[in-house]
Parts: sequence; structure tokens; C-alpha cells
Amino acid sequence: MSEALKPGATIGILGGGQLGRMLSVAASRLGFVTHIYEPGANPPAGQVADVVTTAAYDDKAALLAFAGAVDVITYEFENIPTEALDILEAHCPIRPGREALRVSQDRMTEKAFLQGLGLTTAPYADITDQASLDAALAEIGAPSILKTRRFGYDGKGQARIKSVEDAPGALADMAGAPSILEGFINFTHEVSVIAARGTSGEIACFDPGENVHRDGILHTTTVPARLSGSQRMDAVLLAGKILNALDYVGVMGVELFVTPQGLVVNEIAPRVHNSGHWTQNGCAIDQFEQHIRAVVGWALGDGQRHTDVVMENLIGADMDRVPELSREKDCAIHLYGKAEAKPGRKMGHVNRIIRGEG
Amino acid sequence: MSEALKPGATIGILGGGQLGRMLSVAASRLGFVTHIYEPGANPPAGQVADVVTTAAYDDKAALLAFAGAVDVITYEFENIPTEALDILEAHCPIRPGREALRVSQDRMTEKAFLQGLGLTTAPYADITDQASLDAALAEIGAPSILKTRRFGYDGKGQARIKSVEDAPGALADMAGAPSILEGFINFTHEVSVIAARGTSGEIACFDPGENVHRDGILHTTTVPARLSGSQRMDAVLLAGKILNALDYVGVMGVELFVTPQGLVVNEIAPRVHNSGHWTQNGCAIDQFEQHIRAVVGWALGDGQRHTDVVMENLIGADMDRVPELSREKDCAIHLYGKAEAKPGRKMGHVNRIIRGEG
Repeated sequence: MSEALKPGATIGILGGGQLGRMLSVAASRLGFVTHIYEPGANPPAGQVADVVTTAAYDDKAALLAFAGAVDVITYEFENIPTEALDILEAHCPIRPGREALRVSQDRMTEKAFLQGLGLTTAPYADITDQASLDAALAEIGAPSILKTRRFGYDGKGQARIKSVEDAPGALADMAGAPSILEGFINFTHEVSVIAARGTSGEIACFDPGENVHRDGILHTTTVPARLSGSQRMDAVLLAGKILNALDYVGVMGVELFVTPQGLVVNEIAPRVHNSGHWTQNGCAIDQFEQHIRAVVGWALGDGQRHTDVVMENLIGADMDRVPELSREKDCAIHLYGKAEAKPGRKMGHVNRIIRGEG
Repeated sequence: MSEALKPGATIGILGGGQLGRMLSVAASRLGFVTHIYEPGANPPAGQVADVVTTAAYDDKAALLAFAGAVDVITYEFENIPTEALDILEAHCPIRPGREALRVSQDRMTEKAFLQGLGLTTAPYADITDQASLDAALAEIGAPSILKTRRFGYDGKGQARIKSVEDAPGALADMAGAPSILEGFINFTHEVSVIAARGTSGEIACFDPGENVHRDGILHTTTVPARLSGSQRMDAVLLAGKILNALDYVGVMGVELFVTPQGLVVNEIAPRVHNSGHWTQNGCAIDQFEQHIRAVVGWALGDGQRHTDVVMENLIGADMDRVPELSREKDCAIHLYGKAEAKPGRKMGHVNRIIRGEG
């Protein structure tokens, strides 16, 4: 696929959660048909997609049928099994490409990649056992944080080490999974850059958003973020460096810690990102459409925002607040169609438009 | 249904065209599931809805099954056969209600209703044959326009009468259908008000948009429209009068001619309206979501716009311009997923965001 896809073409999306759902809606807005591949029954994205395949990632026949039915494949999460990707890629282009997945699926690989680009990350060390953890703590010190190298999200697979006495418990929390110790960064706040790169190499960044977490889950993103002009420029330049190094096609979320010494890259996600949901009500072309535009080979939106926005996630019982939120002025509600509001489950978000004083 | 519907409830939509498609997307954004009822195969709305029933409006079994499967019924067009509505309404609430359909399905009824409210319309007369047309022309004069009383849209079922010699040809164009002669209004421009009324009677209007037509089809809507403060107020007040008189629930499009003598009501449409598409990129809550909010009994958005917008329809071969439009700054593309770009067919629209000079 070197030519741009035309409206009417089919976009395959791996994963049927809220990100797949919002990608699907954005694709339909550009006249594309969507096909969701998701192991779980009744996925949120299925309600708004044209076709849904319910099958496991090791179902070779289903993967082949899916790859044969779509014109390009993209995904809503980075932990797709390598074997599934091998089968799919033999028949259909996958965007963003495999290198982005390889790098971001493993925190060790990701950190090495980022440092290789000359970017600043937290100090880190590979942890396989108590001995390697002890050695790493002697070097990196506490407070620090132990994380599984793979499959972590929303604070899962993480254990804080406030002092060396916490080390054995933290290691036990990893349940034998290969892990990484990351040094604590003394940051004033966290921002993220939602950056996109198209098939012809052009790059467009949305304005950085400032993130606040609660219980390890993103709570709010506020745009504009508190950043100086030079920090803003640094954020864009480093995001561009990452995208170019990966020959990336699509939208990426880049989380950054803001410190007096400069920006520190926390992590990257090779997909649309929760901290970019504000773009739905702040930009002519949001992160979901931007991602679709990139993977189908269209021109990108320029990312300029037309209004300031505060995004707030609705987690679990926050769903009870929907009637009240619906009565709030300038508050755009986005719900994901999930049946059960479990604690810690992302059920939706709101984008509050912040009007100028004028 | 006196209580507000909760996310997860199912909204039935009669009609699977682009309006049904965009209503469906708006409903999903609020966590509702959608079910489209449409006689034609592969409707545009079907690609983004959860369930599609493909059946005729005289298929009683299909209508009953549909009414039994949804929690509220709404529609994207006003010409639904009365018999179908009777069957549906016995099992499920229809919003907006029957009175709005009765009034707007027939241009004679609509004109009488509007004049009964004390609103200004074009002079008009019921036309059944050449004699009644001659008598009406003697009264109303030329130029004037002959229209079928029912089933007209996008300039179809209309014939201009520039002078009395055009009368026989115009009458022949009506092919025996009951018709209405409307006097010509000397207007400077046309605007429309997209107004909404909720289940508790609250009313919210979007800013009036200024419409330009080409070949009888809406070409552009520009917001804000050229209107004085008092004209703006008149537009809102008369829209409110119409909605209240009908005990209306949902969004209505009210087309107005602007004349030196004041606003003249051209026509009303008991549904979301092409001239309200700009709200998708100009407001926190667009006309589609506003309509869904009304029919499910939620609070309405206040209709305030956050940016100026020019909406342009993409008709037929305009689809060839999509690559060029995709490279345009601040231009949001909305395509309808229609397979064939026939002349005169609405294929999509763009909303161009107009930024202030500041």
C-alpha cells in the first residue's frame, strides 16, 4: 500500500475497546468501513463498526480471514502477540509498523531505544531476581519503582519501593515476570505529546496536555499545559525524533515528566492515547481521525487547537454522575458503551470546553 | 417513557441515510445502542449502528419486531407512512411526536399551522387543477413557485412560474399530485434556526446559519449569519413558538427568509437538518447529540458555539475533491459512506473552522 486508500476501503482494527471504538467512528467520518478483531464478546467498538470478528489472537484461520477482508490493519493496544502479527503482516500492511511494537512492548527495550536517541529517561535496570534488584537499588536508590517489562497498563504490574525494605515485597508482586527498576524522577508535573507521522514522513503534534493521575489511572488532561516556550519546542522536537527513528506511521502518545533540568521521557504508546481525548472537542481533526489519516496515507491535520479543554476520565462509579454532567454547560460527554461499571474501569470521559475571558 | 433513558438503552432510528448515520454516532457517544430501520439495502447508517433491520414500511411483522427491540423511536425524515407510525406508536414512543409529522408532511397544513401561530409565510393557495392554478396566479401573481404538497426535498417536486405562460408546464410537472402555489418572497438571504425542545419543555437554539443554495440543493451554511440583534431574537422567538405549539421533543430545522419587512418562515423540518451540520465542529454538543438528548429525556446543550464555521456540502463529483480538501487547514471532512457518487447526491460535507483575526 503506497497509494492513499480511498473512502469505501476497509480498515481493520485489532482490539475492540474504547480506543478501537473511537478510531472506528473517526474512520467512518472519512467514509471508511471498519472491521474489528477482538477476542472478547460484545466489544464496545462492535456497536459502531461495520464488521466484528470475535476470535482469539492464536486463531490462525480467523486472522487470515481478517487480513484478507481489510485494506490496512491498525490497533488500539501494543501487546498484540508477535505470532498474530506475523500471520497478519504476510497478507496486509500493519500501521504503525512492527518496530514501534517491538520497542514499546518491553520497557527495557523502550528505555534503551530512547536513551539511544539521546533522550533523557529515568535511570533503569533489568531485574531478574533479588540479587539483581539489590544491585540495582544500590545504584539507583529509593524511592524507585519496579514494573513488569511487558503487559503493564493503568498502574497494573507496578510496585513502588519507598525504601530498600520494600524490595522483597515488590519483587514478589511481579510474580516472576521479567521486570525493570526505574529510578524516581523529581518532576513538577507530567505532560504528554500526541504526535503523528504520515506515510510521506510529515509530522504534526497536538498541543501538549498536562496530566493528573489518581490511583495510577489518568484523571484529567488540561490543555494548554504549563510549559515554557522552549519546553514546548523541546517536547515537539523529541517526539519528532522518536517518530522518525521508528519510521512511524500513525499517532503516538509520548508521556513526559517536566523537571527543572528538562523533559524526561516516561513512556511511549504506539497508538492513540487517553491523554489525547481532549482533541475531540478542541481540534478540527482529533487524534482518532489523525491516526486514521496517517494509516490510510492521507494528509494529516495540523493539530492546532481552537479551544482550551479539560478532559476528565469517568471511572467505574463515575457513571452515576452522567445525569449531573449532562446538565453542565460546555461539557461534552463521551461514553464507551460498556455494560458494567466496575471499579477502576474506564467507562467514558468528558471534555470541558474552557472559554476565554473575552 | 417519562423517565430519562440510561446509557445502554436502545434508540430506534427510522431511515438509514446520512442523517440517521450521524444520529447513530451521536447516540453511541452517549453510550446508547442504535437500531436502524431502513427499506434500502446497505444504508449509510448501517455501517455505524449496532443493528439494522432491512424491511419495507408496510412490513407489519418487521415493524412490530423493531418497536419491541428499542426503547424510543426517532427518525431522519418526515415522510414516514402513517400506517407504519400507527403500528410503531402502539408499542413504543415516537419522538418528535405525531403532530409534528402531520403538520410537516403536507405543505398546505404546514403553511396554515404557521399562519395560525401569527407567523409570516409566503402567500399560498391549494392547487388541484388548471382552474385553481389560474385563480391562484391571479391572486398571488408571478413569479411564484408550484410545489407538490408532499414528498418534496432538495428542490424535487418543484416548478418555478416566471410568468403565467409557465403555468401549464409547471402543472404538468406535478404529474397530478396535490400541489401548492407559493408566492415569491423578495428576500435578501436565507437563514435557518436549528432549535431543540426537551421533554420538560426547555428550549435551546443554535446560532442561526446563513444558507446558500445551488441547483435547489443546500451549498453552504455560514455561522454567524448576517442578522441584526433584533432579527436574531425574532428567529429564536418564532422557533420557540413553533416548538411549543407542537409540544415538540427533538431538534427541528426552521428555514427563514430575511426580508426588509422581517423574517418569513419558508419551511420547517421535524428532524436534524443539513443546515445544522456546522454544529459538529462549532459546538460542544452538536445538533445530532442535541436531538438524541431530547428524545431520551436528557438535558439539552445550550447551543452556544465556540468557533465560527462554514459548512459546505459535497455533492456527487465533489467527492473527487476529497484529497485536496484533506490537505486544507482547519477543514473537517464528514463523509457518508455512500458507494456511488451520483449527480445531485449528497455524499458528505466539510466544516471549515474560521479563526478570529486575533
